[in-house]
Amino acid sequence: MPEPHHAWPTRAPSGRIAYVNGRYLPHAHAGVHIEDRGLQFADAIYEVFGVIGGLVRDEEEHLDRLERSVREIGMAMPMAREPLKLVMRELVRKNRISNGLIYLQVTRGALRRDHPVPNVSPRPTLILTARPIAPGSNEKLRAKGIRIVTRPDERWARRDIKSTALLPNILAKTAARKAGAFEAWLIGSDGLVTEGSSTTAWIVDKEGRIVTRNLSNAILPGVTRRIMLEAAASAQIPVIERAFTPAEAKGAAEAFISAATIGAIPVIEIDGQKIGDGAPGPVTRRLQELYQILSDSRAKLSKST
Amino acid sequence: MPEPHHAWPTRAPSGRIAYVNGRYLPHAHAGVHIEDRGLQFADAIYEVFGVIGGLVRDEEEHLDRLERSVREIGMAMPMAREPLKLVMRELVRKNRISNGLIYLQVTRGALRRDHPVPNVSPRPTLILTARPIAPGSNEKLRAKGIRIVTRPDERWARRDIKSTALLPNILAKTAARKAGAFEAWLIGSDGLVTEGSSTTAWIVDKEGRIVTRNLSNAILPGVTRRIMLEAAASAQIPVIERAFTPAEAKGAAEAFISAATIGAIPVIEIDGQKIGDGAPGPVTRRLQELYQILSDSRAKLSKST
Repeated sequence: MPEPHHAWPTRAPSGRIAYVNGRYLPHAHAGVHIEDRGLQFADAIYEVFGVIGGLVRDEEEHLDRLERSVREIGMAMPMAREPLKLVMRELVRKNRISNGLIYLQVTRGALRRDHPVPNVSPRPTLILTARPIAPGSNEKLRAKGIRIVTRPDERWARRDIKSTALLPNILAKTAARKAGAFEAWLIGSDGLVTEGSSTTAWIVDKEGRIVTRNLSNAILPGVTRRIMLEAAASAQIPVIERAFTPAEAKGAAEAFISAATIGAIPVIEIDGQKIGDGAPGPVTRRLQELYQILSDSRAKLSKST
Repeated sequence: MPEPHHAWPTRAPSGRIAYVNGRYLPHAHAGVHIEDRGLQFADAIYEVFGVIGGLVRDEEEHLDRLERSVREIGMAMPMAREPLKLVMRELVRKNRISNGLIYLQVTRGALRRDHPVPNVSPRPTLILTARPIAPGSNEKLRAKGIRIVTRPDERWARRDIKSTALLPNILAKTAARKAGAFEAWLIGSDGLVTEGSSTTAWIVDKEGRIVTRNLSNAILPGVTRRIMLEAAASAQIPVIERAFTPAEAKGAAEAFISAATIGAIPVIEIDGQKIGDGAPGPVTRRLQELYQILSDSRAKLSKST
């Protein structure tokens, strides 16, 4: 059987190695079939893992969420958890990642295009890529803080499933960037903030209490969100899990966003309105420090077992 | 530069030919890069063209809609219309399609994964595939009629854009098939039918008037819907474009669905309740005949020019 053809723009081999369906391949030359259901139907789930000091962060929690998302859309996991963790370690090693990320995507596989999920599913497609993150890039954002704009939340009803049906998310993010902001906070038809286009939304009220939306189908159950709640609890910082309006956020003492590869990043402006005194706030900084300590100790503990 | 690796399940070459980014390739071996934005973000638009008697049906209308969808998400068309039409003709010829379909997908291209659309977009990915449809398969459905179940409409807010963010659609279709139905009619939070998971929804009231939902962001502007409205007008069959409830549909004289590759297919049951006398109805049959005549004459006219 002939080798497949090079149907994407050729790029010089970068030394990056990807993992696709059981094989480690040069990143630039790794592909999926044109009838992969991930490409044709967004019939796919993904996760992004932070890597710090060569260690995968919050690995079990991300894998828990991956398995849940896969189950929710009636798909099968392509591999058991322990071998999958070995693939991640090998990918970190092969790509010499100290600080960076791992991207993992599972699709329902390649099959003649037809909407319904077949009774006998094809072999799922498993893709993992890794790349370094420039040292200090998050610290620059943390020191300066970021701007947010609000946008209508146009996403589907099941935002608790981490699927690749991300078109509304990327359109919101793109609109934010065009408006000079780092992220868009999405507003539901009820007028309440759901979350950022790819981050969790947080505020700190005048009493120093942290507020973030309660879990439901309306938002992604953020892994970093969960570890931060744990970190806050361990330091007796009060947290309230409830929805808030953009108006409340604009009048808050502090605001911030969180995600796996960035931790907590302070928000200094929403829709052109300054938050607090327009500089990164102390509660955000403290929570980030607590999160970092907790995440570090968990990663080391996980490595030693 | 080495050839890319075979990262998808190998299949025996079928003789099918696909078109990907300027090249005609054996279908089984055609792929896209793992960082194609179509695969990672559903950052992609598609169209399905019916082919009858070797002629592409309603070609200009599908291309109009393709260009509109592409424009709505700020993407560039990968190719001008006339050369694209030549590619479609060549694909029909190479695959020896008499009756069948062409699937066309445009993605924003392959690029290092990052949510925002880059200021300088990569080269879009253009994929075309073709396959025959078994002769008589639609006629069987037309003679027997189909069952429908209703499901909540969980899709994003911009259903007027024909994007590949189809996860909610395929989950609804799969639920329908598991319930022994051919299609799911989706019900918005306002209790009104939007459309089928991949088809337009129609009813015929007791006075013989055809009812289908008016165009808005809530539904896809169906090409077959549009030609059928033209066909109905030409025969002075009254049509009302407005939303209807599942209850109204269940009490209707007739119901049917439409899509490019199937025409009008009668609905004989919704949620287990018989429509009319539980057999395909005369208005549906007449509209299908009128549509067929109009579509045939348009395809022949288009060929001769």
